[in-house]
Amino acid sequence: MTNETIVTAAMLAIGDELLSGRTKDKNIGHLADMLTLSGIDLKEVRIVGDEENAIVEALNALRTKYDYIFTSGGIGPTHDDITADAVSAAFGVPCEYDADAMNLLGEMYARRGLEFTEARKRMARMPKGARHIPNPVSTAPGFVIGNVHVMAGVPQVFQAMVDAVIPTLRTGTRVLSLGISCPYGEGDIGTPLAAIQKAHPETSIGSYPRYIGQAFSTEIVVRGRSQDAVDAAGDDVRAMIESIRQSKEVAENRSAEA
Amino acid sequence: MTNETIVTAAMLAIGDELLSGRTKDKNIGHLADMLTLSGIDLKEVRIVGDEENAIVEALNALRTKYDYIFTSGGIGPTHDDITADAVSAAFGVPCEYDADAMNLLGEMYARRGLEFTEARKRMARMPKGARHIPNPVSTAPGFVIGNVHVMAGVPQVFQAMVDAVIPTLRTGTRVLSLGISCPYGEGDIGTPLAAIQKAHPETSIGSYPRYIGQAFSTEIVVRGRSQDAVDAAGDDVRAMIESIRQSKEVAENRSAEA
Repeated sequence: MTNETIVTAAMLAIGDELLSGRTKDKNIGHLADMLTLSGIDLKEVRIVGDEENAIVEALNALRTKYDYIFTSGGIGPTHDDITADAVSAAFGVPCEYDADAMNLLGEMYARRGLEFTEARKRMARMPKGARHIPNPVSTAPGFVIGNVHVMAGVPQVFQAMVDAVIPTLRTGTRVLSLGISCPYGEGDIGTPLAAIQKAHPETSIGSYPRYIGQAFSTEIVVRGRSQDAVDAAGDDVRAMIESIRQSKEVAENRSAEA
Repeated sequence: MTNETIVTAAMLAIGDELLSGRTKDKNIGHLADMLTLSGIDLKEVRIVGDEENAIVEALNALRTKYDYIFTSGGIGPTHDDITADAVSAAFGVPCEYDADAMNLLGEMYARRGLEFTEARKRMARMPKGARHIPNPVSTAPGFVIGNVHVMAGVPQVFQAMVDAVIPTLRTGTRVLSLGISCPYGEGDIGTPLAAIQKAHPETSIGSYPRYIGQAFSTEIVVRGRSQDAVDAAGDDVRAMIESIRQSKEVAENRSAEA
């Protein structure tokens, strides 16, 4: 437990389409992977629709509770893209056309021979004082204000923005993870696994059932910030699996003899 | 707007594995689809880890705000399955071994020649006064207490439980949805689409960018509870696309003549 640094995060995914089922979110899992690799603990995710009050309320609840907040969605050029307004409202600052973003977008559309429409100009709006998150895919930037990182909902753009943001973050001690495949269901392993968890309080041991055909098997995952602690718990998990295997063998031999 | 019934819902997905990225959630999108088909509006989703305080806090915030709450995860037999305890704590009732669930599980394991271990007995625990949600896949029931429906995290089991729960719910006026594929990006359609939204306040018009190759196209989705209103807005959207096509054709002819 010594010298550990914990950095926490939450994500707010924004969009009616996620709640109607039209779009199956791909950004939550990606951000979770990237934060875990970086040593930042994702503690909570919320999904809300394109409603200013809902966004403001969720954002204000999260940004006071966790070190970093990441949002996805609602920063495009159409009327239902209201994230910049909502984030401005949450921080109590005006939502303005950012001069640098206007230049970036104006030049890009000029280069492509496209009109810089009112709708496209909407993508330059952000809370006063926000910094850009670069968008190498389609130019229109995301932005950072306070501890809130506002990114696009289109997965290719979201992922590029996450790549740009991660190196700017303070990170904690990475959580190491050891996965052990277990051929037995949770009903077989539940009691001994609870004892192993108790014996290894520096680790967090999860078991994830898989239901294939007619039987459950499990993946057991040992997580912790100390390699020694994870390895020690992992050894006990492997010994548990071997012990269950032996006792099942004995039981089978007995019923064969009977 | 007449004679419309609005029924709202929220989902709470529970599990460290969703926040670490190990498991990519499949249940949120499925529930969203099923509720939309049933005329229930999913308004908010939260994901929290296997921590009692986090579960209790989220559940109490959601259950007072929406008509129905659906949870996934944390009702298995291992030490990290704490949803039954957390839901009991949220409702201020004891978490007990349910007699009917003990019978169901005891008979099932006896039939399969398996020991009814302490771990497996954990799956019979639920808040005092809860009703079962049947589990045709692997027997261990979910449960309902108040407006909270507690279901398994394994997608096959979650989906079977959703199928069992949906017919028991009060449903609202279904939201009808009309999808229109649009070859132009949001920068082209943003301004006219905002005008169409304004002219059709009974509908909610969303536009969902797709980034394929080097260009954006859009799917425009008109949603509303009145077929006439959805159709009228859809007609205007189609006319808008045709008008953009014509003006682009004129622009191309001009530059060809120049």
